[in-house]
Amino acid sequence: MVLSSAFQIKTSGFNDVHDITAKVESILSKIKIINGIVNVFVPGSTAGITTIEYEHGVIEDLKRAIERLAPQNIHYDHDARWGDGNGFAHVRAALLGPSLSIPFTNGDLQLGTWQQIVLIDFDNRPRTREVCVQIVGE
Amino acid sequence: MVLSSAFQIKTSGFNDVHDITAKVESILSKIKIINGIVNVFVPGSTAGITTIEYEHGVIEDLKRAIERLAPQNIHYDHDARWGDGNGFAHVRAALLGPSLSIPFTNGDLQLGTWQQIVLIDFDNRPRTREVCVQIVGE
Amino acid sequence: MVLSSAFQIKTSGFNDVHDITAKVESILSKIKIINGIVNVFVPGSTAGITTIEYEHGVIEDLKRAIERLAPQNIHYDHDARWGDGNGFAHVRAALLGPSLSIPFTNGDLQLGTWQQIVLIDFDNRPRTREVCVQIVGE
Repeated sequence: MVLSSAFQIKTSGFNDVHDITAKVESILSKIKIINGIVNVFVPGSTAGITTIEYEHGVIEDLKRAIERLAPQNIHYDHDARWGDGNGFAHVRAALLGPSLSIPFTNGDLQLGTWQQIVLIDFDNRPRTREVCVQIVGE
Repeated sequence: MVLSSAFQIKTSGFNDVHDITAKVESILSKIKIINGIVNVFVPGSTAGITTIEYEHGVIEDLKRAIERLAPQNIHYDHDARWGDGNGFAHVRAALLGPSLSIPFTNGDLQLGTWQQIVLIDFDNRPRTREVCVQIVGE
Repeated sequence: MVLSSAFQIKTSGFNDVHDITAKVESILSKIKIINGIVNVFVPGSTAGITTIEYEHGVIEDLKRAIERLAPQNIHYDHDARWGDGNGFAHVRAALLGPSLSIPFTNGDLQLGTWQQIVLIDFDNRPRTREVCVQIVGE
């Protein structure tokens, strides 16, 4: 069995990190599939999905690591060609990836106690993001 | 229902980036499964799969970020032990990952408008890569 | 059909890399599902899953790249707030990701010859990790 769902989230860009665990759990709680895989996917080329302990310190630490990985203040060919100013966001998104698959059993995501699913918006402006939640199981 | 498919792609290595979206869509268009998850996987330890806006500027920006992440011109124990000269490729592949899962609904991949699936070959020579496309759904 | 399994592994932390391919293959060999997707997932926010050629040189090269990505000896807000001393581990885990999906066909994982599934424990102390193996297929 397959269930396709989605939700929207307003972001401010520039490494904006959002805990989306409750949104995913809410979808799982309303369906009859209790064992399987949840795929969380963000359409678009300037955002990513991963897990972290959603705690202010870790979030700031992660933002700094992403800034080191693809700094805002260096040259990007994308910006030179298109003038978008978000070349750093494209590179960050490609490195982190737009997709995360998580097992669930008896209706429960198999996350650790201090592990949350997060959307990170790398773009250089506010966005309304669609997040796809695809569930395959029985 | 499960469908297993694959295709081959010739690469030149050294961060060679290929848009494989049309290949994946072509497989989806020929089967009866219309809702589910597509897993795109590259066997081998010197290539990776992600998504980007497939545009010359972004591609060059991503290549430079990968070069910063695991530079070609530093020492690699792998090369010292085996003389392969592709230690940088192994590290890059491990960090990016060989696998991407994407939801599809009514036969359509839920990608963004400017988001393409790409294979990146990190190896230090031309390769013919097999890309596995595993589809689970209904 | 869905099969949920798991196994435990003792780690020493600080980028401790474990080849878990045989554990995953052992689970696959005992079930009736022969085609589908295996999702390997580590609960917790200080460990990750990827694939590498499990060879001493590559392992050391990867550890050095991870150290460059999120060095141990810089400031972490997480440590300043909580005194855990493992801020670097949280950042590393968020960047690598806790999840990997792999296709299998006729009971065989579609890995390359020199490609192994690895758990990397980034934490700053020994841990006993649970690894979830969720199999969806037919």
